[in-house]
Amino acid sequence: MRKINKILVANRGEIALRVMRTAKEMGISTVAVYSEADRNALHVRFADEAVCVGGPKSNESYLRGDVIIAVCKDLGVDAIHPGYGFLSENAGFAKAVEEAGLIFIGPSPAAIELMGSKLAAKAAVAKYNIPMVPGTEEAITDVEEAKNIAREVGFPILIKASAGGGGKGMRVVEHVDLFEEQMQLAVSEATSAFGDGSVFIEKYIGSPRHIEIQVLGDTHGNIVHLFERECSIQRRHQKVIEEAPSAILTPALREEMGRNAVNVAKACNYVGAGTVEFLLDENMNFYFLEMNTRLQVEHPVTEQITGLDLVKEQILIAEGHSLGFRQEDLQINGHSLELRVYAEDPANNFLPDIGKLETYRRPQGLGVRVDDGFEQGMDIPIYYDPMIAKLVTFGKDRKEAIDKMLRAIDEYQITGIETTLPFGAYVLQHEAFVSGNFDTKFIDRHFSPEVLERKPNEDEDEIAVALAAMLMETQKPSTTDGVAVSENNSSNWRRNRTR
Amino acid sequence: MRKINKILVANRGEIALRVMRTAKEMGISTVAVYSEADRNALHVRFADEAVCVGGPKSNESYLRGDVIIAVCKDLGVDAIHPGYGFLSENAGFAKAVEEAGLIFIGPSPAAIELMGSKLAAKAAVAKYNIPMVPGTEEAITDVEEAKNIAREVGFPILIKASAGGGGKGMRVVEHVDLFEEQMQLAVSEATSAFGDGSVFIEKYIGSPRHIEIQVLGDTHGNIVHLFERECSIQRRHQKVIEEAPSAILTPALREEMGRNAVNVAKACNYVGAGTVEFLLDENMNFYFLEMNTRLQVEHPVTEQITGLDLVKEQILIAEGHSLGFRQEDLQINGHSLELRVYAEDPANNFLPDIGKLETYRRPQGLGVRVDDGFEQGMDIPIYYDPMIAKLVTFGKDRKEAIDKMLRAIDEYQITGIETTLPFGAYVLQHEAFVSGNFDTKFIDRHFSPEVLERKPNEDEDEIAVALAAMLMETQKPSTTDGVAVSENNSSNWRRNRTR
Repeated sequence: MRKINKILVANRGEIALRVMRTAKEMGISTVAVYSEADRNALHVRFADEAVCVGGPKSNESYLRGDVIIAVCKDLGVDAIHPGYGFLSENAGFAKAVEEAGLIFIGPSPAAIELMGSKLAAKAAVAKYNIPMVPGTEEAITDVEEAKNIAREVGFPILIKASAGGGGKGMRVVEHVDLFEEQMQLAVSEATSAFGDGSVFIEKYIGSPRHIEIQVLGDTHGNIVHLFERECSIQRRHQKVIEEAPSAILTPALREEMGRNAVNVAKACNYVGAGTVEFLLDENMNFYFLEMNTRLQVEHPVTEQITGLDLVKEQILIAEGHSLGFRQEDLQINGHSLELRVYAEDPANNFLPDIGKLETYRRPQGLGVRVDDGFEQGMDIPIYYDPMIAKLVTFGKDRKEAIDKMLRAIDEYQITGIETTLPFGAYVLQHEAFVSGNFDTKFIDRHFSPEVLERKPNEDEDEIAVALAAMLMETQKPSTTDGVAVSENNSSNWRRNRTR
Repeated sequence: MRKINKILVANRGEIALRVMRTAKEMGISTVAVYSEADRNALHVRFADEAVCVGGPKSNESYLRGDVIIAVCKDLGVDAIHPGYGFLSENAGFAKAVEEAGLIFIGPSPAAIELMGSKLAAKAAVAKYNIPMVPGTEEAITDVEEAKNIAREVGFPILIKASAGGGGKGMRVVEHVDLFEEQMQLAVSEATSAFGDGSVFIEKYIGSPRHIEIQVLGDTHGNIVHLFERECSIQRRHQKVIEEAPSAILTPALREEMGRNAVNVAKACNYVGAGTVEFLLDENMNFYFLEMNTRLQVEHPVTEQITGLDLVKEQILIAEGHSLGFRQEDLQINGHSLELRVYAEDPANNFLPDIGKLETYRRPQGLGVRVDDGFEQGMDIPIYYDPMIAKLVTFGKDRKEAIDKMLRAIDEYQITGIETTLPFGAYVLQHEAFVSGNFDTKFIDRHFSPEVLERKPNEDEDEIAVALAAMLMETQKPSTTDGVAVSENNSSNWRRNRTR
């Protein structure tokens, strides 16, 4: 057992604040690192100490593992929390942290390395009979060999870069005639993007849902799962809306996927919080995709339905504590949704819309949680992921969580930049989402920029607001006792939200 | 069954916003009323329509039931939610609402009236053998008769105005020799304060805890309880910190008190959300105090541990729905605390400290909920209760809820006025509170203005901050790769909070 007294969070934005809040609640001092672009960021203000570690670009600052470890030594830091992204899945960094005598709040370098290679990961979990999408068992670069495998598996097939991730370096091939050309392109792309041209080939699942299982393992060999997150609503292969539990999992399937996820974690002696990702096809068959060896962006929905603070659990595990619960102690209470509020224009192919948060007012109230790293008047820096906030809601059931999310979206006031808020409102009211009948192709199937115009909120635009104001003027109720004056204020409230 | 399409909230501030948020989530239109002092209030902006109903004083606006009912008729309102305070426990208003063909979201006028009189209430619940503090069964004004009863019950005794409430019109008499004089004073005070000089006399409980049980009843005769709230931390007989569940109730006692609370509700055919208040003495005996026939200020702690939205339940009940759950479906998940953030100076006998919110930044994150009605730059009006916000936290157990509250208090940035935040921090760190060994006299026993100075937070004052800055300057870590600069930002963050 090794008590942690001071944590450095090797990250920025909402996740740095998220981690530091829990650290503070546990009586642990906090150290922030920041780039020159983040001098005024909230995580810098929140921390007990803060150190500028370099220039605005990630590789000048947040990716400088050597500088960050030196800061730890200077300031007497015990442990590093990597958050997500940046150095969080860098086995070399985790190893350097350990070699410096510090605690890395996460799994072992070996587990990170193993799960970082899709093929090695699949090989490692094979002995647990984890279901996998049919395809290559080893990374290949040979076109003829690949073509034979593709024929065996049956088209359509998917070519994936071994070193890729998050949708990068993936391509679908519909027919054998197109295979050679696509394979050659994939290899050369993977070589230039990742410095590793090896790919693997697998059966292409046409209507997949992305379902992931949260796991927690301690240093004493105990591993539990914290149920699933449904992450099928994606744009550009990146998640936008997540929920827990999934609208379609049966208790039996949940239990089976949970058991498989725990086995994946066992296969790499996993310690800490991790996520096992699966694809689920139309026939409710699931296939192991990969394991993310870190806290996920979307971890809050799991916290809301289990009542656990995942960062607290990570820290307790890193200190050497045993998990304080067994699998049978855990249960799902209610339903939670997360909408990632990106500085992107959904009407313009989700292109980043960087700028100043002219107005920024968060929604509040029962069942609403906002994890963010910004305040009114701040700029969204161009150097990093353009996520402004994670808007999380929870209610006693899915309908209530959706109703709260729609209310919260309406209450959220952001001007100065376009965001994914209207996209969120569209999805949450769409019949496919409400019914639970959707997959990762929701946007392809159901979304186009025009739908945002056709929405019931059409009356939000300036002309409509002005018209409404005129109508209210003429329809003003007769004065009651000389004091009654009716006003339509909701349009004001809403108008604040639009640019 | 009568669908509600438009609700008028006959209230202001946080509770008006609270109710309107849930209404919006349920697809119900909202109408705000406001006084001339509240023209810029958030509840006015949030509502779909808003009507000024009169001058700044409550009796010129928020208490004008006639004007409010007229507004409902003008705007096609179906139902009135009274919030708490103002007209919420006014049986005459509830009756007038019904007579105007509107739905009053609350119990029947008869139930309000019955429970509004302490003596009538006690008589009504007697058939259910609800435990009561020994004393008079009827209101009396005769000094000799009162003295005899006091002797029977045994000193110390308590004299309470029949029409009083919230600690008003109460006095303790320690010895028979002092009785006559105190009784005469009590009667004349009650006459001038409430227009009703009748009092009752009961055994004085020296170390009482205030424990209340939330109940919900529907129009079909179903009544359940939603467990207890501990409300013993009070100043001037008014609650400041509440929690659910209580730190000291056993499951058996919880069940017994819950059953008694349901019986109290049955005794008045209660419909809607109500609260049955009990005193609990040192020997864990409980005594019925009174029933509050409305939503309580502290209802959020119950929402957090049960996962229910009490305003939603109120509205569903008012529409004629049956409760969607039975007693055995309800369970306690986790622990929740509420700190009422008042514009009061705890170092100056909790005197109101009205003024402008120069800085106002709310805490955020997992397990933190802020219900308020203000924004930075707004004034706290002098006309109403000086509550700025309800700071609610929840965690998997009491310790976690306390840790989150302390973090949230530290993160809350309010300047321009003094608040009860430092008082909250003091209480939550006090051994008596942490151990659960406290009663309604916590402040008398453990608090004096000086303790706020002696706290571990002593280093918050300007001199300490300056000193710390100087120390940091000399202890600055050696520059690493020419980029490391250490700064102590937490003192900045904290300094923002102090005046």
